[in-house]
Amino acid sequence: MSEAASHQPAESPTRRLRVEIVAVGTELLRPGRADTNSLWMTEKLAEIGAFVERKSVVADRIPDIQSALRNALQAGSDIVIFSGGLGPTNDDLTREAVCSLLGRPLHVDPQLAARLEEFYARFKLTLNENNLRQATVPEGGEVIANPKGTAPGVFIPEGDALVFLLPGPPRELCPMFDKKVLPMIRRRKPVDAVPMRALRVCGWAESKLDTAIESVYAKRTDVETTILSNVGIVDIRYQWVGSGDDERARSVLNDMVAQTREILGESIFAERELELETVVGDLLRQAKRTVAAAESCTGGWIAKALTDVAGSSDYFRAGVVAYSNASKTALLGVNETTLERFGAVSAAVAEQMAVGVRGLAEADYGLATTGIAGPAGGSQDKPVGLVYIALAGPDGVQSRELRLPGGRDLVRLRTTRLAMDWLRRTLRS
Amino acid sequence: MSEAASHQPAESPTRRLRVEIVAVGTELLRPGRADTNSLWMTEKLAEIGAFVERKSVVADRIPDIQSALRNALQAGSDIVIFSGGLGPTNDDLTREAVCSLLGRPLHVDPQLAARLEEFYARFKLTLNENNLRQATVPEGGEVIANPKGTAPGVFIPEGDALVFLLPGPPRELCPMFDKKVLPMIRRRKPVDAVPMRALRVCGWAESKLDTAIESVYAKRTDVETTILSNVGIVDIRYQWVGSGDDERARSVLNDMVAQTREILGESIFAERELELETVVGDLLRQAKRTVAAAESCTGGWIAKALTDVAGSSDYFRAGVVAYSNASKTALLGVNETTLERFGAVSAAVAEQMAVGVRGLAEADYGLATTGIAGPAGGSQDKPVGLVYIALAGPDGVQSRELRLPGGRDLVRLRTTRLAMDWLRRTLRS
Repeated sequence: MSEAASHQPAESPTRRLRVEIVAVGTELLRPGRADTNSLWMTEKLAEIGAFVERKSVVADRIPDIQSALRNALQAGSDIVIFSGGLGPTNDDLTREAVCSLLGRPLHVDPQLAARLEEFYARFKLTLNENNLRQATVPEGGEVIANPKGTAPGVFIPEGDALVFLLPGPPRELCPMFDKKVLPMIRRRKPVDAVPMRALRVCGWAESKLDTAIESVYAKRTDVETTILSNVGIVDIRYQWVGSGDDERARSVLNDMVAQTREILGESIFAERELELETVVGDLLRQAKRTVAAAESCTGGWIAKALTDVAGSSDYFRAGVVAYSNASKTALLGVNETTLERFGAVSAAVAEQMAVGVRGLAEADYGLATTGIAGPAGGSQDKPVGLVYIALAGPDGVQSRELRLPGGRDLVRLRTTRLAMDWLRRTLRS
Repeated sequence: MSEAASHQPAESPTRRLRVEIVAVGTELLRPGRADTNSLWMTEKLAEIGAFVERKSVVADRIPDIQSALRNALQAGSDIVIFSGGLGPTNDDLTREAVCSLLGRPLHVDPQLAARLEEFYARFKLTLNENNLRQATVPEGGEVIANPKGTAPGVFIPEGDALVFLLPGPPRELCPMFDKKVLPMIRRRKPVDAVPMRALRVCGWAESKLDTAIESVYAKRTDVETTILSNVGIVDIRYQWVGSGDDERARSVLNDMVAQTREILGESIFAERELELETVVGDLLRQAKRTVAAAESCTGGWIAKALTDVAGSSDYFRAGVVAYSNASKTALLGVNETTLERFGAVSAAVAEQMAVGVRGLAEADYGLATTGIAGPAGGSQDKPVGLVYIALAGPDGVQSRELRLPGGRDLVRLRTTRLAMDWLRRTLRS
């Protein structure tokens, strides 16, 4: 089952800039190492209407670097950004690989060479021939100054494409990218910023939600809709890709958000990148209400999630993780007869847990969970994924039965989110 | 300071398998989204002597997927692994793109179709033509069963290369990769497994640990040593890259592990990929002991971590999250005078919390935390990062003062791990 569906109109009439990022470095292909530069650059590029269409990580080898460049140019990229491989050692081959493929001889720039010599002298090092490679510029190219290191960047216009070579260390790359590369792109490839709206939803299965809001986006050829699901939370994103001015874009997107709100109503918990626990916390603080949690199957996850938020001591009173039957009785006052008659995984026990913790912690709300997270412990009557949640408040107590798919972690996280979302809806009503 | 240090000797004479990983998904090219599958697979592949030489992320578009495959085959890859784009929606194009490029028509597999129909019926959904694409197999290819989802994987032998198509969600991909793909690779491309040893350590700063064990690895040209730190846990990895037979490799690695054990002793909690909470759980079960947690600054994280482990009801009795002073007194019996005199963040309060929860839950051990996780709440006397942990057991109660670096999340997670590790060391002694 897909975790993400992107509904892309067949034609996108606005001009989007196609970007390709290539990280060069054998060390980036080792276990546990990730290329983080590309994540950061992707975000910055999106803000100026430039979209990364392919990312790759290649080893410090000339054929691999050249094949990446060839692919990027063949795919019609407007912008190709290399990071890494510009330093002084024998493994630093990006400059040579790229310039030789593009047929651009490298010449030593006297000014760069002088500055480099000065830098090396300051650290009492001698400049050798290998180091001097950092002072070379390709024919028809430009140098991008690197205030934080010895390896300057390189810019090469190649036909309609812009090719950038940047150093790998983020502390060098980031300021160069911000201050030099982005303005260079904006000057040479001006596009409009892309208006976008995001909605976060809890309590809907992705496929049902997709069907429910299909009418909002299906016929729009000027908006790209992305629906991304992650354990009980679905993110909807409408991104303008049409022509027309900003005003038109904003009016279309506002309209789509309004239509979506009409369909999903209170299921939408945020219009920007807020976590559910932050939204719940803000509502509790505004209403001057407090909460306590009594958890069995979630094992402390609700308490942990609520207290992930700084300042949660304003509204989070206490939590009890009553994992054994004995602790449900001893800590929360769950009736032994109820436990025997209905079992620990039952609506009655969930309700007594919620009422118990609410009283114990002197909180306005008591939230409780009991269920079978698996993998063991299920039966025909009470299968893995059967969960009861209960909410006790000033107006009494209610419970709900959930039947959740997935393994232990997913059942626990989904329960945590659905319970917090129930409290959120109650606070909104 | 770098989080990972790789100490790589110059030459590695053994034959290695060349692997290329392609993550397919437009959503993986958005800001803030990373392909994590490839990191995990890289680690697993290294263990069988297969090395990732290029990774890329491409959009859900047929030409982009095909160009990635073409590049991988042209580069002489032994193994090409695609993840993502196998689901039922119109954007899921990996299967079609790959099979069409390789000239392998897709046929519906009746058995797969029946299983899929059954799955959809169980969730009261109807199977349409698009869904049925998940039941197709390419000519000359094989199906890789997916026990956690609807989209099976596909294996295609192409000349000397092995091409694998796997679903994107990690909870589906990981078990398929472990149980099917790795054995298939090992069977078809037997290379000498690269002897490797891993050690997991809690309670050491990375740089101190590196200095402490430098004598073990520094002069070895036949072993690659990696030291990777992650919030209180450090992973050490010794990987054989020398020539000589397996026996020699094993003897060298055994020797290095023995030397490392001599230096780090009980700080090593595992010699393979075990989580700390699993190790603690196993020790509790073996000793037939039980535990309960009283948490303030960790807010339920210890309870959550311990109950992440299936079967933890064998030894985890209960947890109390006493976030407010009132709840420390009401729920755990912490003395009001102690609270007033020493403050909530103090050794005395931590000890009373541990003793309190131990008695309340009738457990053998009581583990307690109280501290200032930040960002607010710190003072000159009691700064952010000041934490007390306490452990109550059959022989009485003890406490420790910690001064932890980092933001709220890091302080909380570090505290959780150091507290669990203290219990582990106690159970081992």
